Amino acid sequence: MNLNGLNFCGKTRFGTGASTFRAVNPATGETLSPDFFEATPAEAAETAGRAHEAFQRYRAKSGAEKARFLDAIADEILELGEALIDRCSAETGLPPARLIGERGRTINQLKLFAQLLREGSWVDARIDRAVPERQPLPKPDVRSMERPLGPVAVFGASNFPLAFSVAGGDTVAALAAGCSVVVKAHPAHPGTCEMIAAAIQKACAKCDLPDAVFSMVHGVSVEVGMALVRHPLIKAVGFTGSFKGGKAIFDAAAARAEPIPVYAEMGSVNPVFILPEALRRNGETIAVGLAGSVTLGVGQFCTNPGVFIMEDSYESKLFELKLAENIRKTTAGVMLTNGIRQAYENGVKTLAAQPGVELVAEGENDDQNRSPARFLKTGAASFLSDRHLEEEVFGPSTLAVVAGRRDEVFEIARNLKGHLTASLFGTGDDFENYRELIAVLEQKVGRLIVNEFPTGVEVCHAMHHGGPFPATTDRRTTSVGTRAITRFTSPVCYQNFPDSLLPDELKDDNPLGIWRIVDGNREP
Amino acid sequence: MNLNGLNFCGKTRFGTGASTFRAVNPATGETLSPDFFEATPAEAAETAGRAHEAFQRYRAKSGAEKARFLDAIADEILELGEALIDRCSAETGLPPARLIGERGRTINQLKLFAQLLREGSWVDARIDRAVPERQPLPKPDVRSMERPLGPVAVFGASNFPLAFSVAGGDTVAALAAGCSVVVKAHPAHPGTCEMIAAAIQKACAKCDLPDAVFSMVHGVSVEVGMALVRHPLIKAVGFTGSFKGGKAIFDAAAARAEPIPVYAEMGSVNPVFILPEALRRNGETIAVGLAGSVTLGVGQFCTNPGVFIMEDSYESKLFELKLAENIRKTTAGVMLTNGIRQAYENGVKTLAAQPGVELVAEGENDDQNRSPARFLKTGAASFLSDRHLEEEVFGPSTLAVVAGRRDEVFEIARNLKGHLTASLFGTGDDFENYRELIAVLEQKVGRLIVNEFPTGVEVCHAMHHGGPFPATTDRRTTSVGTRAITRFTSPVCYQNFPDSLLPDELKDDNPLGIWRIVDGNREP
Repeated sequence: MNLNGLNFCGKTRFGTGASTFRAVNPATGETLSPDFFEATPAEAAETAGRAHEAFQRYRAKSGAEKARFLDAIADEILELGEALIDRCSAETGLPPARLIGERGRTINQLKLFAQLLREGSWVDARIDRAVPERQPLPKPDVRSMERPLGPVAVFGASNFPLAFSVAGGDTVAALAAGCSVVVKAHPAHPGTCEMIAAAIQKACAKCDLPDAVFSMVHGVSVEVGMALVRHPLIKAVGFTGSFKGGKAIFDAAAARAEPIPVYAEMGSVNPVFILPEALRRNGETIAVGLAGSVTLGVGQFCTNPGVFIMEDSYESKLFELKLAENIRKTTAGVMLTNGIRQAYENGVKTLAAQPGVELVAEGENDDQNRSPARFLKTGAASFLSDRHLEEEVFGPSTLAVVAGRRDEVFEIARNLKGHLTASLFGTGDDFENYRELIAVLEQKVGRLIVNEFPTGVEVCHAMHHGGPFPATTDRRTTSVGTRAITRFTSPVCYQNFPDSLLPDELKDDNPLGIWRIVDGNREP
Repeated sequence: MNLNGLNFCGKTRFGTGASTFRAVNPATGETLSPDFFEATPAEAAETAGRAHEAFQRYRAKSGAEKARFLDAIADEILELGEALIDRCSAETGLPPARLIGERGRTINQLKLFAQLLREGSWVDARIDRAVPERQPLPKPDVRSMERPLGPVAVFGASNFPLAFSVAGGDTVAALAAGCSVVVKAHPAHPGTCEMIAAAIQKACAKCDLPDAVFSMVHGVSVEVGMALVRHPLIKAVGFTGSFKGGKAIFDAAAARAEPIPVYAEMGSVNPVFILPEALRRNGETIAVGLAGSVTLGVGQFCTNPGVFIMEDSYESKLFELKLAENIRKTTAGVMLTNGIRQAYENGVKTLAAQPGVELVAEGENDDQNRSPARFLKTGAASFLSDRHLEEEVFGPSTLAVVAGRRDEVFEIARNLKGHLTASLFGTGDDFENYRELIAVLEQKVGRLIVNEFPTGVEVCHAMHHGGPFPATTDRRTTSVGTRAITRFTSPVCYQNFPDSLLPDELKDDNPLGIWRIVDGNREP
């Protein structure tokens, strides 16, 4: 398809603003045509208004109708073929093989939510039947289920230009919930965004849905996005990106006349605890695996293991040597943008300059557009006293925190901020001795992992990809997996309704055949 | 029991601050002994710290253990006998019969949550089993369930001194979730608070739980409560009260270094739509019922019908006459506090002084400590142009909004702020003609009611007592009914865990026999 750089207000394309920008190939530094037109705040507002109108029709669609839409989006994305992969690779520096995998994940995600909608029980339908003869007061008939919140603003991530972007997790969850969506396109891959947006519009037309169920605006400056966040008709925000960006959106949303929920996934160092017996028995394997996890995708994963903790010993020194050897062997990679590369280089430099921190090893590099992996090291005392050491450095680096004794490992765990994940490498004996660590970490992260690395987030029903602040602004919800659908819903309760006025999910004879809680009992 | 006016840091009683206050009997204006000691901010902080320590043990308790605790609290509250009812009636002006009913509700609420815990499926346990042979990557074993957030600060309501106060909905939901609780006692009924707090402490000792699972601090000024809201170890807040109080807490929580969820239920006028055919056929019955609902409990319910909407007609005029007659017949009641009485009187006076508003009828009154019911009236144009007319006047008043035509009814509905409930009185024909009104109101309120009045909130599984801002600060959750338990939890995910390290709810052989979602299917 030919890119034209325009915004999408539903299917209507516009670009009246004077400000334009281009994508840049991070591998070469070259700009890519065409020009993309930054939406004006007024255009963003207009788009929010149309999203509200479309929501009035879309919210009433059945699960089957919404499922058909999600499947159609998946088909249209596949229809984009190699052109999508080529453009996306040029804009992000991510290799085609990785992007083909990510496209598969994006499509599976759409299909998983379609399946959830066809099954239908996700709405948490509850019925408490009337007991007119109850004393002292009759019991009324009360029923409730989850309903969509309204138009949602979605800010995609740079590091998953398909799976966490225009048709990514938040968009799919919101559309599945019955919300209309306005995406703020990520300026690092605007051509990819345009292609996916066009695919969604095609699916929309095929399914005969109101076109403004989906819109997308471009913007390099923060104004366009903030115009969406502040617009009274926007009812929730999904965001994946930096702490600074996510927190600014959270603050703006909390300061609105009507505050709205913001699901911002921000930063995480995903601490990895390597317990003594595991270090002794499997140190070498873990070191090789850790180097692979740190450098996977040039370290550009939210679940990248940015910190690992072990107790000082003969084996920990061997581990350091092995990890250093593996880090040195890694080839430097192209990062997503020049800005991200610079932030990584500065981040590592700042980290290495902290008192008590040393740079242990660095990967190979012979290209100024690429960034090498780094392995740094500090002691427990430094880590506990300088809270900056726990801040995410986005990229292929990791920091060893070497504890002098067992107590310090617990102290580090107890003093952690919120993160997305924590991993524990241990043997049966280790977990006998460190069982309490799990209780501590359950309060610090959204996902605990035993004997596996944190990179790789399975899209499934049980996944929880979230965690306490500052990893996210709302630990109660996930951005990956089917539980995400309730980010964009709230219960609505119907009392004493005649059957004909109830949603199908709550009708007496259960026409959709979903699981419900009837008088406290689960019934199919 | 003898009241001593001290605070509870767990079972430890303290009162070192210089500031004291007394309860006042609103029926007589007399102060009641003893003096109550306002906690200092330092004492509030100390209490939060102890709540955090207790949480470390309490969070690991089984559903059965927590259920036993809730049942024991119910028993200890009943043990307080008539002394509780007497003191509570003296502090609130609420008649003993009403308080005996409310005590029953409080106890049923404890027992309903105990039942929920014994059944156990509320944790939303999910298991996606490993598929090691999956291509291109193995599928890991991923499991998740809801876990408690941490210590919760609860601000009770003045209007339900038992069911929404110290052992009220939020406290019970938080304790059921596995959180420790610090209650900020309501200064309008501090003696009732002390009696209930002592009962909870007795239950705590009986069940051999850490005593700081429950604490309670007194305070008249906002400082004590804000010290709790701002304390880093407090992880969520439940509040029931005024918009001003709830919004101040919401803002303070959002401004923390680590923002936390605030569940504030604030104000609502609970609009009642009386549709034309219902007005024609059942106008008289509805008018009598409406007068009863407006004046129930001297109008001091969050679900009090503060506004009703009807179309101008011969029947609407008859309805006004009938309602006026019934309002005039009502006897004035004692309100909860002198401050509430004055706010009601000022609120009604201000409302009546707005252009386009007239006072139609007033109840009887011959006692300066009592407040009579009021019925006011305005037109659709005034209501739509002056948004203050939609603000809650807490007390026994209602405002008729008379629409000139059908369109205006929809315009009023579309322009409503968020409320807890909306009621629709209609016949089959009415709902044919006004079906769209339901779609509009689903976006405006938490509970829709057909042909019943909003007062009376059933404590059950399907109840949703919440609604869009400004009715609450978080429409996604309820303050009444078993769904409230997830206010105080977030999912935690366990990947590749050996069975022995998993919580019982997630173990392979399902030792608790709960419902779970396994590979996407619901299984007992």
